Amino acid sequence: MSKTVNVFFMADIVGQPGVDIVTKMLKGYIQKYQIHFVICNGENAYRGKGMSNEILKQLRGVGVDVITGGNHIWDNYKFHDTLKKDPAILRPMNYPKGTYGTGYGIFDLPNGLGKIGVLNLQGRTFMYAIDCPFRTADWVIEKMSQETKYIIVDIHAEATAEKIALAMHLDGRASAVMGSHSHVQTSDERILKNGTGYCTDVGMTGPYDSVIGMVAKPAIERFVYQTPRKYECATDDVHLCAMVIKLDAETGKTVFLERIFFPEFEKSTMG
Amino acid sequence: MSKTVNVFFMADIVGQPGVDIVTKMLKGYIQKYQIHFVICNGENAYRGKGMSNEILKQLRGVGVDVITGGNHIWDNYKFHDTLKKDPAILRPMNYPKGTYGTGYGIFDLPNGLGKIGVLNLQGRTFMYAIDCPFRTADWVIEKMSQETKYIIVDIHAEATAEKIALAMHLDGRASAVMGSHSHVQTSDERILKNGTGYCTDVGMTGPYDSVIGMVAKPAIERFVYQTPRKYECATDDVHLCAMVIKLDAETGKTVFLERIFFPEFEKSTMG
Amino acid sequence: MSKTVNVFFMADIVGQPGVDIVTKMLKGYIQKYQIHFVICNGENAYRGKGMSNEILKQLRGVGVDVITGGNHIWDNYKFHDTLKKDPAILRPMNYPKGTYGTGYGIFDLPNGLGKIGVLNLQGRTFMYAIDCPFRTADWVIEKMSQETKYIIVDIHAEATAEKIALAMHLDGRASAVMGSHSHVQTSDERILKNGTGYCTDVGMTGPYDSVIGMVAKPAIERFVYQTPRKYECATDDVHLCAMVIKLDAETGKTVFLERIFFPEFEKSTMG
Amino acid sequence: MSKTVNVFFMADIVGQPGVDIVTKMLKGYIQKYQIHFVICNGENAYRGKGMSNEILKQLRGVGVDVITGGNHIWDNYKFHDTLKKDPAILRPMNYPKGTYGTGYGIFDLPNGLGKIGVLNLQGRTFMYAIDCPFRTADWVIEKMSQETKYIIVDIHAEATAEKIALAMHLDGRASAVMGSHSHVQTSDERILKNGTGYCTDVGMTGPYDSVIGMVAKPAIERFVYQTPRKYECATDDVHLCAMVIKLDAETGKTVFLERIFFPEFEKSTMG
Ligand SMILES: [Fe+2]
Ligand SMILES: [Fe+2]
Ligand SMILES: [Fe+2]
Ligand SMILES: [Fe+2]
Ligand SMILES: [Fe+2]
Ligand SMILES: [Fe+2]
Ligand SMILES: [Fe+2]
Ligand SMILES: [Fe+2]
Repeated sequence: MSKTVNVFFMADIVGQPGVDIVTKMLKGYIQKYQIHFVICNGENAYRGKGMSNEILKQLRGVGVDVITGGNHIWDNYKFHDTLKKDPAILRPMNYPKGTYGTGYGIFDLPNGLGKIGVLNLQGRTFMYAIDCPFRTADWVIEKMSQETKYIIVDIHAEATAEKIALAMHLDGRASAVMGSHSHVQTSDERILKNGTGYCTDVGMTGPYDSVIGMVAKPAIERFVYQTPRKYECATDDVHLCAMVIKLDAETGKTVFLERIFFPEFEKSTMG
Repeated sequence: MSKTVNVFFMADIVGQPGVDIVTKMLKGYIQKYQIHFVICNGENAYRGKGMSNEILKQLRGVGVDVITGGNHIWDNYKFHDTLKKDPAILRPMNYPKGTYGTGYGIFDLPNGLGKIGVLNLQGRTFMYAIDCPFRTADWVIEKMSQETKYIIVDIHAEATAEKIALAMHLDGRASAVMGSHSHVQTSDERILKNGTGYCTDVGMTGPYDSVIGMVAKPAIERFVYQTPRKYECATDDVHLCAMVIKLDAETGKTVFLERIFFPEFEKSTMG
Repeated sequence: MSKTVNVFFMADIVGQPGVDIVTKMLKGYIQKYQIHFVICNGENAYRGKGMSNEILKQLRGVGVDVITGGNHIWDNYKFHDTLKKDPAILRPMNYPKGTYGTGYGIFDLPNGLGKIGVLNLQGRTFMYAIDCPFRTADWVIEKMSQETKYIIVDIHAEATAEKIALAMHLDGRASAVMGSHSHVQTSDERILKNGTGYCTDVGMTGPYDSVIGMVAKPAIERFVYQTPRKYECATDDVHLCAMVIKLDAETGKTVFLERIFFPEFEKSTMG
Repeated sequence: MSKTVNVFFMADIVGQPGVDIVTKMLKGYIQKYQIHFVICNGENAYRGKGMSNEILKQLRGVGVDVITGGNHIWDNYKFHDTLKKDPAILRPMNYPKGTYGTGYGIFDLPNGLGKIGVLNLQGRTFMYAIDCPFRTADWVIEKMSQETKYIIVDIHAEATAEKIALAMHLDGRASAVMGSHSHVQTSDERILKNGTGYCTDVGMTGPYDSVIGMVAKPAIERFVYQTPRKYECATDDVHLCAMVIKLDAETGKTVFLERIFFPEFEKSTMG
């Protein structure tokens, strides 16, 4: 077996329950899979809306290397300064020029493995009219490729078609394209024709006795009454979702994907 | 082990490739899981858009009992007559009064197992402004419950939150709530607190060398150029997605879920 | 000339500047046009978002009879109690059952002219998935017609097509259908074939040195950066928009429309 | 009175009825207002959807200098070649790079008046995720300004706020910013602080016994049933909408606006 660069990718972490299960479990996964680099999407980490400096500290303390974002990353005003200054905190790159923060970075890997690039993008279908994620990916990946062959993309998007289209567009140019934002894990992880690892959504890490992390009752009422209800982060039935991605150290291509959903849901009550 | 009613549920079947793999595989699954009833969503079966009478015949020939629909079920005008007359062809129930066709039905089960109800609903978030799926479910399920305790809901919707909210709203009243429309299978199948089986999306049966069933190049160009491109149904890398749902014959609640994705994608190319 | 019932209709009043110009001007208009009844849309009266009890008192003090609403009518929580109890404060009728408040009312006219009905509706295109405004209008107008032949509809909607379609649908059944929500007055007021007076939008009463009432700079930045900016109500260049609607006292049909935009903009700087 | 450059601007011309009233009336307006340059939006000229070469010939024959477009300009495939080659046929400039056609042009004025620039932009709110109209305007107007001080912008957009924000953004840089797409004329034409003439929508030229140009019955049914109905261009009650814009020949700023709605609707049936 040839040498690999092993990445642990988590999509939307929701609220303190989500942060806490990461805190508790991450070191074990790092050990088990010999992980070299950890990425997690933090747009809902602080009470379901945005990030905070306390949570950043907590996540870094257990091994998270890079935080990616999405449409909710701007929600907590107290985190804006960090977003501006900290190169390991990303917001989607294709927000228009003039938006503070950055959407990609090149980071050191341990053990002399060189460097790894992370690119955060956001879709536009049913979302905000920001810059084209396809074109942004084109030029940023070309630029990143001059520094490293390991490139992980977090595509934060609503429409499945837009995520898949982006992955196909980048097949062979990015090491892996992992989806976030829907808060539900998809089972379609695969290695595309030209070696890019893909999964439409890696899924929420947080409380599942909820509607995508929010207490169910007000969430249901929003749909039923179409008037504002107070958002409240749920607390129970916490699960961790992640993807283990192993990249060939020579080529940068994905050679192994393992999807994690822990603990598994009960799917049978038959005796 | 107590007696169960065994249902085989398929979400969006796309194009002739999708229809053909169902034709080839379904009988085997029926046998393997001792399936009593087969439901599949046909909104994209005819060239990716709508249904046809030929495909209906083909699907029935291999054991499909009920066809459900969604936003694309109206696309082939030649199928409208069947939609009007055939009680085993459903379109989302919460289309407004005056829309032809129906959205639910009560059907006979084999082996003296009684009857089973199927309800097709459509979400509204990022979709059409039809009637409330929550309220529609309330009254239809109450009505169906007078005839049977086995009730399967196909919730055809874009937003994950709307699907989960509906399932939580119906927990304990429907036997199972299964999602369709996103064309990507989710891995969150579970039995909710009060016994309702749930999965956000059971996933596309059709060609995966594509963008949700469409040839990739024009699909990518639609996102990149935002101008019309000709839709063309893809053909390669065909997979079948389904859910096996076993209902307790006494209570009508889900007691077993098994998610099918066949054949599995390659997830490792490591030696 | 036959006897008429004279109505003064104002669409979205924005902020204290809007409320103040109404306070200053309304009595003059009432006198000039011998107005019997005054309706105004208050969804943006309180700092641009919702209504307040103080503003209600101020508007009533100068002759406003009925306040209609729209998507922003829920914005000020302190006004909810009034919305629940006061029959002359309307919110769009086609919000789902279970929403507090009401969307129509029958009110006394002065001078023994009998009664007048007001119905507030909201569109769904590019807005919330509430009940169908067409069907809601059908049953409510039938009900109102048993009490009065004078029926004024405030259709609060985004899409011009939806407003026009509703007016055509109600032509001959409502006395007048007047649009709100776009904050820009349209010049298409007319009497439809069967006697219903119509205007797509009666226009904002408020500060025009703004983007639909909001201070221009943050409003522009929202479009340019697609990230949150603080909403702030503008103050300058205040204009009043309204429609004078005269209904034939016998038939209830519109016999006269006069659109008001005061003061007029300067349209020429030529010597 | 100083010398002026006189522009006649028409927004969406709908179908043959719209084209025919332009054919019949335009020469008279050109004469009456001593018009030097005629711009009209042709996205709905051909049967309500797109443009045709025959209509182009007809419109040019009566004095139209430039055709602008919008989201429907791509609808008639037979016109694509003209869109590619003819510099006086514009489509919104902020469609992504790689889209054929162009979105601006510099054209000769008669009588030694020099040149005039026309820029076609499209909004994004509730529309397609194309490039930013604000940024596109910034660089294109800077470029155009090197050749002429007369610059007319057609902003084809759904949301009133986006149109006004763009006009405020360009105040003092464009001679005039005129809106199209809503198919309803607004009465808010004015000269902004720094000399830019503005109107949110100049309005449809076409059949008004319709829903924005479409036969009313199927248009209403689309809203009521939310399922497809056949689009059919209406024919009756044809009106012409336009704006006369006079620019100071020295400064390029708007010095005079006159809004045309011909023939006027009947607004009174009182004896
Ligand atoms: Fe999220
Ligand atoms: Fe998100
Ligand atoms: Fe589908
Ligand atoms: Fe669908
Ligand atoms: Fe408003
Ligand atoms: Fe509104
Ligand atoms: Fe148009
Ligand atoms: Fe348009």
